[in-house]
Amino acid sequence: MNGAQSLIRTLVDADVEVCFANPGTSEMHFVAALDTVPEMRGVLALFEGVVTGAADGYARIAGKPAATLLHLGPGLGNGLANLHNARRANTPIVNVVGDHATYHKQYDAPLESDIESIASSLEGWVRRSEHTKDVGADAAAAVAAAQDAPGRVATLILPADASWGEGGETCAPIPPRVPQAVDATTVKDVAAVFGTGEPVALLIGGDACREEGLRAASRIAAATGAKAFVETFPSRLERGEGLPTIERLGYLAEQVTYQLDGIKHIVIAGTKAPVSFFAYPGKPSDLVPEGAQVHTLASVGQDVTRALNEVADLVAADTEPELQQASRPAVPSGPLTPQNWVDVIGATLPDNAIIADEANTSGLMLPAATAGAPRHDVLTLTGGAIGYGMPVATGAAVAAPERPVLNLQSDGSALYTISALWTQARENLNVTTVLLNNRAYAILRLELQRVGAQGGPKANELLDLSRPDMDFVKIAEGMGVPATRATTAEELAEQLQRAFAEPGPHLIDAVVPPLL
Amino acid sequence: MNGAQSLIRTLVDADVEVCFANPGTSEMHFVAALDTVPEMRGVLALFEGVVTGAADGYARIAGKPAATLLHLGPGLGNGLANLHNARRANTPIVNVVGDHATYHKQYDAPLESDIESIASSLEGWVRRSEHTKDVGADAAAAVAAAQDAPGRVATLILPADASWGEGGETCAPIPPRVPQAVDATTVKDVAAVFGTGEPVALLIGGDACREEGLRAASRIAAATGAKAFVETFPSRLERGEGLPTIERLGYLAEQVTYQLDGIKHIVIAGTKAPVSFFAYPGKPSDLVPEGAQVHTLASVGQDVTRALNEVADLVAADTEPELQQASRPAVPSGPLTPQNWVDVIGATLPDNAIIADEANTSGLMLPAATAGAPRHDVLTLTGGAIGYGMPVATGAAVAAPERPVLNLQSDGSALYTISALWTQARENLNVTTVLLNNRAYAILRLELQRVGAQGGPKANELLDLSRPDMDFVKIAEGMGVPATRATTAEELAEQLQRAFAEPGPHLIDAVVPPLL
Repeated sequence: MNGAQSLIRTLVDADVEVCFANPGTSEMHFVAALDTVPEMRGVLALFEGVVTGAADGYARIAGKPAATLLHLGPGLGNGLANLHNARRANTPIVNVVGDHATYHKQYDAPLESDIESIASSLEGWVRRSEHTKDVGADAAAAVAAAQDAPGRVATLILPADASWGEGGETCAPIPPRVPQAVDATTVKDVAAVFGTGEPVALLIGGDACREEGLRAASRIAAATGAKAFVETFPSRLERGEGLPTIERLGYLAEQVTYQLDGIKHIVIAGTKAPVSFFAYPGKPSDLVPEGAQVHTLASVGQDVTRALNEVADLVAADTEPELQQASRPAVPSGPLTPQNWVDVIGATLPDNAIIADEANTSGLMLPAATAGAPRHDVLTLTGGAIGYGMPVATGAAVAAPERPVLNLQSDGSALYTISALWTQARENLNVTTVLLNNRAYAILRLELQRVGAQGGPKANELLDLSRPDMDFVKIAEGMGVPATRATTAEELAEQLQRAFAEPGPHLIDAVVPPLL
Repeated sequence: MNGAQSLIRTLVDADVEVCFANPGTSEMHFVAALDTVPEMRGVLALFEGVVTGAADGYARIAGKPAATLLHLGPGLGNGLANLHNARRANTPIVNVVGDHATYHKQYDAPLESDIESIASSLEGWVRRSEHTKDVGADAAAAVAAAQDAPGRVATLILPADASWGEGGETCAPIPPRVPQAVDATTVKDVAAVFGTGEPVALLIGGDACREEGLRAASRIAAATGAKAFVETFPSRLERGEGLPTIERLGYLAEQVTYQLDGIKHIVIAGTKAPVSFFAYPGKPSDLVPEGAQVHTLASVGQDVTRALNEVADLVAADTEPELQQASRPAVPSGPLTPQNWVDVIGATLPDNAIIADEANTSGLMLPAATAGAPRHDVLTLTGGAIGYGMPVATGAAVAAPERPVLNLQSDGSALYTISALWTQARENLNVTTVLLNNRAYAILRLELQRVGAQGGPKANELLDLSRPDMDFVKIAEGMGVPATRATTAEELAEQLQRAFAEPGPHLIDAVVPPLL
């Protein structure tokens, strides 16, 4: 057994059964070893940002890590933006980066690169597996490190000779560290905050955005009058009919200030205290209202759901959560607008869908329009590195082939990782992409104003995507994905229903004017 | 004057007059400042790998740096692969990476990232410009560092508040370090090597691949019987009618072993001793033949052209260089093959063209077919990070709008940075892309065999691009670039001539079967 075979066998034994890959020469023994371990599925992507984003989307839905396969420093670099998003989502990923053979590094061949420096920027787990006999044990350690609560990117650097050498040994799975329980005193102290009579906001994140945490938060809010919020960019938010609808904290500092107006206590559960996404001249970065106290119930990585349940049992023993009734908007009519397209989504969303949301400015009114739709998951842009939607949708569809995946994708963000469409076609994934084509970096038009910069024609030119207009129908078809164009609400509804009904990927180029 | 204005003004004063940009919120004051410095041209790209590759191609042709504008760690990550290639090309680039405001970093907002670690992997120059009043001086230092011989990537990290703050001061250009002259003793000692009567190889690289260095190398070879070679992946190689034709060292170790067979002395001029691109089990990494001596005439960063001229004056005082006669293949006929498409290029290449060569396996026979074509420059994949061709062609066309740019682009490498086509359309650049569509990662099929890995069906699946086939005509048209498909040599020739005759970008999807 060579090192690569021991690596893949160890991964499979630890229940890592998908590898998103964009390999090169130094990874050829890993690629060849896939044929010796039939349980491992290899999924090819044409760009590493698709590989890493797909691994993120996969794990958010599967609840366990996928592996990646990347080619030296440049491959890791290309994958870095979506690994950044995964880091912010606390997504477990086993990131395998091939490198030159150990004895070859001294020659400074063209692809020689400082993989450790690049990987270290992810603040996760990094190990170089220098010896064939250690590769299995290092792989098992990587899987555990990826899954140690709350989850992280574990990067295993695999020199080519460690991969091709004989003498590989598989290693049994290492149990990851489970989330640490919150101590009883903290639970009691935080419960008391809800009894002060002063206005309280409860801000939940991480695993608390799943059904059990939402129910506990809803009970607390209903019983105590606290305002409950979900963190701005949850990794995975369960919502829709039969679940509590809890408002997300806004992206814009102005929104958050409005949402938290008058609050005297903020209870943090599974996330961090609210801060501004960017700095703006003369505006605060810290969004905790002046004079408000922050109380941490559960830090990121602690067992937030259990802690919320314990608080709920103290302050809301007899209170049921407030559950969302079924309610869909009617299909609107006429030309698509930033206001009406979200109603089309609300009207047509199928049961048990997964939404990979990179609608950005176009999606401002999406939450209201879909609150009463059938139960669904929403995956969001946790790290702010655009180009996440298409890959994450791809990985989510690999994780849940039976579920419809809806990728709401703004045009400006689409081009970073557009080749995800090809992987969707290749794997016949049930992903429907609604490409929100407003022909602008609309969010930057807004941000240019918000930072107080005085832009002229040259500045505006750098935020404009209309010269030339992109034809996403042709681009999608060029990558093997059937595509149509919708300019009216009726067309969008009809095309969505057709796309959901037919297996495999589809793209709808939805011509929606910019909000601004 | 704010910091951003002082930065751009300082860049322009130092003759940096193009900025390839993919900005975000933290760069909005830089974007706005473009309107106050009319001499700076902003060129928008939809992905950072296009930004950095374009900056590389620009500098290789313009002989001076462009600036980039990137958005925090994820933006730098996306640009890293082509910065790696630029590093290997010793290309001067002024890499501007926006960051959060200094006071905002403590809040660990979603885009907070370890920019320094990522930038340090490039082994260039990195500085964070913390104070508005220092931004101009730091920019001048960055331009100088980028241009200090032999050239490098200089990364200036620009916090948003340093950018928007008032009190910016421009800084006069700082003269960069020119290449160090080779001392007379070394010149004399190396000249003596050519007189030993033993077989000598002269391996030139860097600036020696331009006309003057090629002429000196040709004289030395003609007078002494030494075999002259150009390094495997030169940054910019001048060739064609009227210039010496000097063979490039091969990519495959087996080729190099053949080329250097029997050599007893290798004289290195402006490059490094030959090493294998990758390690292969049981094969040497060091490609210097056993028993051969290596003599360094000029290291990378020394004045290699002058040193070659001095050696030539000692050993070849009365010898003229051997200059290539005009000679073009006839346009072949029939279906395209890996053998005949290069003849179409040789037959149709216009005067004074720039070839951005990422043909990979498809281009094996290109050098012979174009040796006697009109004089042209060839830009090559210096660092092995694929996805370089389209961006480098884009930047080269910005640098030399009057010259025809021909991008020979393999399909497997195209999808990394495909949105370069959109920038070509937007800027109406004279780039003709020949997309060599062999529907495979053909080089990896070869490498799978060469590393001795036994691949089965799953491995072959990961090297196959034919499921689904990509339609590059549609993809290009979707990005605003007119496109046609060629399946015969006649069609390719006719479409090439049409593309060269018409201003603006074109793409030809050339259906060429794989070599293997």
